[in-house]
Amino acid sequence: MDLDSERQARIQDAMREAGLDALLCAAPSHVLLLTGYWPVMAASVALVARSGEVHVIAPEDERTLVEAVSGATLTTYLPGRLEEMVDPVQALAKPLLSLLDRLQLSRASLGLELGYGVQPASYLTQVHFRASLADVLRDRQPAARIHSCDALVERLKAVKTPRELDLIRQACTDAAAGFAAAEAAVHPGARENEVAAAALAGFERTLPSPLAGVPASERRDGHFFCMSGPNSATASAAFARTRTREIAPDDLVMIHANTAGNGYWTDITRTFTARATPSAPPPARHRQMRQAISEATAAALAAIRPGARSVDVDLAARKVMQGHGFGEKEFVHGVGHGVGFAAANANALPRIHPASPDILEAGMTFNVEPAAYFPDFGGMRHCDVVAVTPTGADVLTNF
Amino acid sequence: MDLDSERQARIQDAMREAGLDALLCAAPSHVLLLTGYWPVMAASVALVARSGEVHVIAPEDERTLVEAVSGATLTTYLPGRLEEMVDPVQALAKPLLSLLDRLQLSRASLGLELGYGVQPASYLTQVHFRASLADVLRDRQPAARIHSCDALVERLKAVKTPRELDLIRQACTDAAAGFAAAEAAVHPGARENEVAAAALAGFERTLPSPLAGVPASERRDGHFFCMSGPNSATASAAFARTRTREIAPDDLVMIHANTAGNGYWTDITRTFTARATPSAPPPARHRQMRQAISEATAAALAAIRPGARSVDVDLAARKVMQGHGFGEKEFVHGVGHGVGFAAANANALPRIHPASPDILEAGMTFNVEPAAYFPDFGGMRHCDVVAVTPTGADVLTNF
Repeated sequence: MDLDSERQARIQDAMREAGLDALLCAAPSHVLLLTGYWPVMAASVALVARSGEVHVIAPEDERTLVEAVSGATLTTYLPGRLEEMVDPVQALAKPLLSLLDRLQLSRASLGLELGYGVQPASYLTQVHFRASLADVLRDRQPAARIHSCDALVERLKAVKTPRELDLIRQACTDAAAGFAAAEAAVHPGARENEVAAAALAGFERTLPSPLAGVPASERRDGHFFCMSGPNSATASAAFARTRTREIAPDDLVMIHANTAGNGYWTDITRTFTARATPSAPPPARHRQMRQAISEATAAALAAIRPGARSVDVDLAARKVMQGHGFGEKEFVHGVGHGVGFAAANANALPRIHPASPDILEAGMTFNVEPAAYFPDFGGMRHCDVVAVTPTGADVLTNF
Repeated sequence: MDLDSERQARIQDAMREAGLDALLCAAPSHVLLLTGYWPVMAASVALVARSGEVHVIAPEDERTLVEAVSGATLTTYLPGRLEEMVDPVQALAKPLLSLLDRLQLSRASLGLELGYGVQPASYLTQVHFRASLADVLRDRQPAARIHSCDALVERLKAVKTPRELDLIRQACTDAAAGFAAAEAAVHPGARENEVAAAALAGFERTLPSPLAGVPASERRDGHFFCMSGPNSATASAAFARTRTREIAPDDLVMIHANTAGNGYWTDITRTFTARATPSAPPPARHRQMRQAISEATAAALAAIRPGARSVDVDLAARKVMQGHGFGEKEFVHGVGHGVGFAAANANALPRIHPASPDILEAGMTFNVEPAAYFPDFGGMRHCDVVAVTPTGADVLTNF
């Protein structure tokens, strides 16, 4: 596929503004941002130069995956052979240094990932370069000036291009099958691990239904969690966790998922009541929580538009929750955070949080996740992924 | 649970030999090595001092998980609050600096992770500290001497203690349910993604059966892949990949898994024939491959003992494969690599590879994975996890 010209234009603008001659990134979501390719083993680097050249250096066994999705110029290296054991930094250094040489970047201002970052896992095991790429450059290209590109890349990831929006919408659509399977599996007597397994199986077994004009997600990844009864009250943590608890009648049962298509991530939660019989009404307390969360979601959506302050979106939902009696002890986290290049990262831009300085822009995607948690009783959360449109908000998780 | 005294003794020996006053690690498998706790969000640090003190600093919402498995002294930090948004490096820096101060390590020789590493994913999204922790220390504790602990930690991870061996054996035992479910799902007409989903569901749905004296794996993680027909020939890559291909009669169907219990990983492969009828014999070519791989596994196992050279174990299996006509074009990778703290990492010690300098020691755990791959036809691999005993080899994947 050709490169995303809108994305490349934005990268050039950001480099010009920052005075950088090139961006050099290895974190999978940053290689995705720069080239459209999401590395598997996190052993690839992407380089975008002010000249407009876009390169990716990847292990040879990722070649066909790169070529399927990215218009970047590809150089591969052999990750391991019978003749020798390969250190990935050494293996990358050679083509990287010769690329910098060829592009006349040996004395350039280079933007690298130097500080901490939060990354979705691209595979069950990954290379972590830590400081090694910067060390190679300092050692072998001492005339190059190395700067942090961390803040620049975080800002670039926050605002999606039309093509990226399509791919995130596709990932959200693909997640629906998992939630349908989860809902069908929620009943008293089922265990959390059984429900989570059913949800994931529903997701994995369902072939993607490509939206018009969007390529199917060749590489899909799904993480589904089930937290029931008191366990659902622990879902306010930074991470979700499925246990083996048996679901009891009238339990709150929270299904949380982070799924991905070709490296673009979702962050979705639905909460069900485990009814003793299909016709039994949910307990009054559940209905009250659901009503509050539904109204809070609507209030947040109504506040979303380009130029709006994130704090005002947070406050719009928070006031509704407070009006229903769910204050800072029950609704303990922000209303949302950036999603797309990130999954489950409260620091991804924009942060929809009472202390956030972020201003919304068209093309931003984030989750809206009002919730109420009661220790020993349970928690309810409804988490949608939304995009900021020129005039308001578009809910990408329409199920 | 109390700390693993054998592990702590080995850490002290290694620090003494390297002249380090303390080890300070953040990579999840290294925190596991030092403390017995496998961090979820990779936002924790472990510190072991020459005084024998063992500390972990973790986000508050991981407190109960730490306390359930580790005897390390725990300090927590708040990962995020409504009052402020938290940078994990800043959040960690405060308790870390005061701990170094209290342990009189402000001018000490500290071992940190500075170079590249390969890490199994502890959660679907993780903090990557990159160079930030070393930068904080250089900035705030300028009298401390910072050294790389990378090689030391890799060597420590290679040789497991009796307790760690039990936990890896438990993880291997738990994986059996997934393979049983996969085998039952393999038949012509099934799709790879359906078989992989069935395998994972079988694994997730089955409650762990704790071995005598071993605590059940509270935190389990499973990744199952299905590669059929020509796709199975691509399994020689550094990563496995499930597609949506429909399995045909007499296809080779390779099931690869990396599973974990409490952070201890497995690396297991089985290959089946998709028989048109249950009584149909597998094709002669499959039988020939299976026979070669079975004999190669036996030859490798017979060569394993403390003091044996890794190259000789590799050669023992490789010669058998060559004798059956499967040379360097078909059996393209080493016989194995370290497993346990690592999953699917060809550079984990010991490397059972033609170019490996590694010598086997009792307590090492690695995989034995002879294989033959034929592009356009398929691949067969049988991958077991084995432990080096005082007298030979113990297969931990007895199914």
